[in-house]
Amino acid sequence: MADPERTYHVNGELCPASEATVSVRDRGFMYGDAIFETLRAYGGDIFRWDEHAERLHNSAARLELEHGLSSATLRDRIDETLTANSLDDAYVKCSITRGVQPGKLTPDPVTDPTVVIQVAPLPRGGISGTQPWEGPATLQTVKTRRISDTAIPSNAKTHNYLNGILARLELRPTDADEAIMRDQEGNLAEGSTGNLFFVRDDSLCTPSLSGPVLPGITRSVVLELAAAEGIPTRVDAFDIDDLHRASEAFVTNSTWEIRPVDTADGIAIGSGPVTALLRRLFSKLVEEECYR
Amino acid sequence: MADPERTYHVNGELCPASEATVSVRDRGFMYGDAIFETLRAYGGDIFRWDEHAERLHNSAARLELEHGLSSATLRDRIDETLTANSLDDAYVKCSITRGVQPGKLTPDPVTDPTVVIQVAPLPRGGISGTQPWEGPATLQTVKTRRISDTAIPSNAKTHNYLNGILARLELRPTDADEAIMRDQEGNLAEGSTGNLFFVRDDSLCTPSLSGPVLPGITRSVVLELAAAEGIPTRVDAFDIDDLHRASEAFVTNSTWEIRPVDTADGIAIGSGPVTALLRRLFSKLVEEECYR
Repeated sequence: MADPERTYHVNGELCPASEATVSVRDRGFMYGDAIFETLRAYGGDIFRWDEHAERLHNSAARLELEHGLSSATLRDRIDETLTANSLDDAYVKCSITRGVQPGKLTPDPVTDPTVVIQVAPLPRGGISGTQPWEGPATLQTVKTRRISDTAIPSNAKTHNYLNGILARLELRPTDADEAIMRDQEGNLAEGSTGNLFFVRDDSLCTPSLSGPVLPGITRSVVLELAAAEGIPTRVDAFDIDDLHRASEAFVTNSTWEIRPVDTADGIAIGSGPVTALLRRLFSKLVEEECYR
Repeated sequence: MADPERTYHVNGELCPASEATVSVRDRGFMYGDAIFETLRAYGGDIFRWDEHAERLHNSAARLELEHGLSSATLRDRIDETLTANSLDDAYVKCSITRGVQPGKLTPDPVTDPTVVIQVAPLPRGGISGTQPWEGPATLQTVKTRRISDTAIPSNAKTHNYLNGILARLELRPTDADEAIMRDQEGNLAEGSTGNLFFVRDDSLCTPSLSGPVLPGITRSVVLELAAAEGIPTRVDAFDIDDLHRASEAFVTNSTWEIRPVDTADGIAIGSGPVTALLRRLFSKLVEEECYR
């Protein structure tokens, strides 16, 4: 069951995690007809809340899921949940579904969305603390391709997560712990839960958002930091050979922040000065923005 | 909320529909990490149970969702639910999720799957009864393309249904009530909730399963009936022009059975002798198999 010690927030009310449920008729359960954001709380503050709120807004627009909740209301509920759990440093997941509607696939206008906030303690890793990942990532290119933008827009963050799960299942017979997914044309897209960066010829490279790539908040922060530091960046189409020949690589998401890569398809890549610098700059930014 | 008069079946127990819930940590809710079948009960019997049980088994295999429940157990639960609701003619949805697992995307072996059976009254339409659809379908080709087999296998029936929902959302500004979805190459695939058939040059045509097409049980029954009746069939790749020039068309799924098509992209198509014959044969088959 859900962590019995935690308090979640469901439809405007705090409740014990063990009692946090949704109807089996909820469209979030029946169809994954839901949007979400994964956030980090540092020192009781939400890192880059505005960007997350904007992406949630965009996800809702893509799905025409007009839930009617303001960003301020959502933020209040998140803060309330953190307070109820006495958590300053935490993982936060905020989901909004189209709720329970009459039994047909075509959605009705949303009159009663389901809003769920889950939290879990997650100490800040920073540079030298305990990281939320077990060591650097070992990557494996998988056969499962990223869903094309023409089928589900990749800039919507939704509860339809089987594509990434199928990618992770391919890792079962391997030693790898993160999948590298390509688009239909064979270009690098992203990991199953994060964006991909690598260093080649002294440039920081990451697949462009013109492919089926989630516009990660951590991804944009990393690009921002690199620009400010004068690190040359290439946001472009890349293939698997580009990654294999990289001198450094890392994967990013809000939970992991910047997670170095050890190997890709068995090829040693490892960390290096660019990764180390960006991790240091990221940590400093978190301190500046959240621990004022 | 769910229909308060109904009784559902959740994790081995009958319960009022209003109390049928899953944890917000259930992978079915968080990721749509779940498989399902939609079934019809006629006269208290499940039409083509063996085929549905086999497809559910295949969906589980594709997702490596080893739930450990036998077909007989599932069938017992379905029968129990129908009895508890005093329903002979009904819609039945049977879902199995990977359950609640520790908070990471990579699935653990399934130790405690969530099994949900929902039912609703659905009188048999037959030839002259009240149909579960409101008149013949008006089809509209949509921009949303079917998810490629390389991203999510189309022969797995899962709770990741946003692709079909996005297709239905495109119909909002139109008069159409079913979307025609194409594959990435532009070939006809299927509707958002059913398979597509049409008649051209006296042949019954339907897109081949080599495209991203769900192997519908009603689809296979229709092909079986056509073969037995000596109706020439073409199971192949088709484009939208083939449909536009059809003399008859219909869409199939377990709920709708055979639903005639009125128009496609505003072009009049309508029913005809092949559709009428197949509907009659289908109805006779249901009588023979379920009302013995």
